[in-house]
Amino acid sequence: MAATTDTEREGRWVVKASQGSRDAINPVRGFEENLFKDALKARRTDIEFIKLSIGDTTALPVHPAVPEAVKKVLELGGCTGYGHSRGLPETRAALARLYSPFTLDPRGLTAEDVIMTNACSGALETCLTVLTEPGQNILVPSPGFGLYSCLAGSRGIKCHFYRLQADRGWEADLADLERQIDSETAAIIVNNPSNPCGSSYSKQHLLDILAIAERHRLPIIADEIYAWMTFPGSEFHMLSSLSETVPILSCSSLSKRYMVAGWRMGWIIVHDRQNAFRDEVIPGLARLATKVLGPSTLVQAAIPDIISKVPEDYHQKNLSLFHRNALHIMEILGPAPGLFPVMPRAAMYHMVVIEMKHFPEFQSDVEFTKALVIEQSVFCLPSPAFNTKDCFRIVLGCAESKIQEACNRIAAFAKLHYKE
Amino acid sequence: MAATTDTEREGRWVVKASQGSRDAINPVRGFEENLFKDALKARRTDIEFIKLSIGDTTALPVHPAVPEAVKKVLELGGCTGYGHSRGLPETRAALARLYSPFTLDPRGLTAEDVIMTNACSGALETCLTVLTEPGQNILVPSPGFGLYSCLAGSRGIKCHFYRLQADRGWEADLADLERQIDSETAAIIVNNPSNPCGSSYSKQHLLDILAIAERHRLPIIADEIYAWMTFPGSEFHMLSSLSETVPILSCSSLSKRYMVAGWRMGWIIVHDRQNAFRDEVIPGLARLATKVLGPSTLVQAAIPDIISKVPEDYHQKNLSLFHRNALHIMEILGPAPGLFPVMPRAAMYHMVVIEMKHFPEFQSDVEFTKALVIEQSVFCLPSPAFNTKDCFRIVLGCAESKIQEACNRIAAFAKLHYKE
Ligand SMILES: Cc1ncc(COP(=O)(O)O)c(C=O)c1O
Ligand SMILES: Cc1ncc(COP(=O)(O)O)c(C=O)c1O
Repeated sequence: MAATTDTEREGRWVVKASQGSRDAINPVRGFEENLFKDALKARRTDIEFIKLSIGDTTALPVHPAVPEAVKKVLELGGCTGYGHSRGLPETRAALARLYSPFTLDPRGLTAEDVIMTNACSGALETCLTVLTEPGQNILVPSPGFGLYSCLAGSRGIKCHFYRLQADRGWEADLADLERQIDSETAAIIVNNPSNPCGSSYSKQHLLDILAIAERHRLPIIADEIYAWMTFPGSEFHMLSSLSETVPILSCSSLSKRYMVAGWRMGWIIVHDRQNAFRDEVIPGLARLATKVLGPSTLVQAAIPDIISKVPEDYHQKNLSLFHRNALHIMEILGPAPGLFPVMPRAAMYHMVVIEMKHFPEFQSDVEFTKALVIEQSVFCLPSPAFNTKDCFRIVLGCAESKIQEACNRIAAFAKLHYKE
Repeated sequence: MAATTDTEREGRWVVKASQGSRDAINPVRGFEENLFKDALKARRTDIEFIKLSIGDTTALPVHPAVPEAVKKVLELGGCTGYGHSRGLPETRAALARLYSPFTLDPRGLTAEDVIMTNACSGALETCLTVLTEPGQNILVPSPGFGLYSCLAGSRGIKCHFYRLQADRGWEADLADLERQIDSETAAIIVNNPSNPCGSSYSKQHLLDILAIAERHRLPIIADEIYAWMTFPGSEFHMLSSLSETVPILSCSSLSKRYMVAGWRMGWIIVHDRQNAFRDEVIPGLARLATKVLGPSTLVQAAIPDIISKVPEDYHQKNLSLFHRNALHIMEILGPAPGLFPVMPRAAMYHMVVIEMKHFPEFQSDVEFTKALVIEQSVFCLPSPAFNTKDCFRIVLGCAESKIQEACNRIAAFAKLHYKE
């Protein structure tokens, strides 16, 4: 037998996994698919299980125009062939028309400014991949959507968290935000309206954030998946409508506004008034799009119909349900001992701050929410899912009677465990 | 005004793109969407344009059971909610049943061994991400599918190309393959049946490759997207059916066998008889799946019907068309001067080797195929799309009369430009 070479090996075969795969920790999915497994098994079963953990929307009806649009594509042949790697031209053109009123660029937007992605998650991943080098950092809100740190971990970039202030409608602490910037900062993530806060920022607050980005020449990744999803009386401003200079990648999807999160259909809108993205970022985005060729053409082809045929009052009906649910939460949990629900203005979430010192039985809100599952069969996500502490999040997308029932149980739970 | 901090900047704003986004160069899409733009504009237009460049399949009918299966899902509510990050359990169970006969594990496969991905491209990306660290290398066939080097580039890993031998049914040069292995090699990509070669390896050849993997303790990424797609008289062996030891991640999708490439629906089958993947790779794959939550649940939910209702003779009909087209190519291009078509046994491609010294007008096969577009309105992909040289690829998925017409034009082109 020939001499063994230095790469030949014997014994048990163990294949290592990359650092990135070890650090791709999605706290939302972690709780959903793993960490609460035992609590979910141990939960009380004599009462109905109420799941308010995931920003899923299956409790609400999808507008019939949405499946109709897909059926029409199927009848016309199913759009089965490979599409352009950045997405179907007509789909991108339809989205460009939708977003054109929200740019200060007098030329508006064209299909060339739109890239189709695997839902908003895929849009965010693509933006992070093009804008950051492993080892750099990004600015991320806290509380904020847990996927940001998961994507950052998988790419080997750090999150510098900037504080949102519960007592100021979850506005960013601007001084804190600016302090987090260093020479290795590559971008700022702004999530407006916010998951999990349900905030929707004023024009002035967004201008303040834009001014910081401008001073430090930092591009913004705007997670605007909840665009236009404000409750009656609240305002929403698209970030791109407020700046002539700051380069912005705006991410969104069909998931929340059209209630088809499972279909994984999203996009990036490129706002680049000063050509800051022209030389490198736009070609980089185009190249990245050739890696997996974007999302399903079947649903892509249905988008022009979906956005033109679902009437505004479908959205308003959903929002008014979220709003009423938020009011129920305020009414029932407002008086509950040790709990401070913060009234949201947008999106589909309600944050409840816990005064942990009054619940000495529980080491943290994770133990608190686990016990809530076991004792009351109500599942809400605790703070680590949002890179923060001492709170939990309630999803507003369900029937009013369910939210009321859930809140009554949460209030009873708080009363039982509260200590002066 | 406060003193400027050291991260404040002035002047023109230019945002850099990451190295990974610069190196995500997909040669197939490059030719398709960019490099041939001018040639395509300049092409002769008095004759029909024949596009044989992309492994798209829109020339062939999709089996009606495929859109029917999706319509059924739409009628049952559209499966619109978030699914499990690794995919819908019933879909993964259906695929586990499909692949179970091809493992040597007497327990067969279960849904836990299946991960749904954004087409085969997404499957390959996930496998590379979990198995490699930036700076490492992977073994990649040449000629081979151009996406491998694109994905490697975007991740900062190197491709060590191993040579396939045209005169031996495109078998790997095993000595060359083994020579490419060094201490930084993380995995071997084996693509069988092959794009662009149309080869389908013998059992013995696959056993030889497995023995090398075994000796060096290298996991295999098996790109088996063309599984079962062999021409009459040729054999296909699933890699997993030949090894009790080598850990294998097998990648595939609906794209080619069901002709719905645009729908971007794929999967990874994890074969791990010796638990080499258990401690790190399988948890790593699970975490990576939580980044973008996989492909559309709409098509996922249709998969059990799709794989059970599309009859075997649909596949056989397509394969026999590919086979007849390959025979036409042999017949017409075999005698053409300076061209050497290599008869394929599987998949949907035909490689044609060019003796470039007889075409001194053209610096390379890229110039050759560009001139072919301009003069004859026939578009075939040149060798850089497959990390090789001196050849081009013809896609077999089109009507026989078109292939014949295209070949007649290619032969005329060869005759015109051939120099002794
Ligand atoms: C703020 C925010 N961004 C992105 C996402 C991911 O959306 P998608 O399902 O489109 O990937 C969510 C989902 O909950 C979200 O809340
Ligand atoms: C060998 C091989 N692997 C992977 C792919 C990508 O397939 P999908 O469209 O499923 O991403 C292709 C497509 O041509 C291919 O030929």
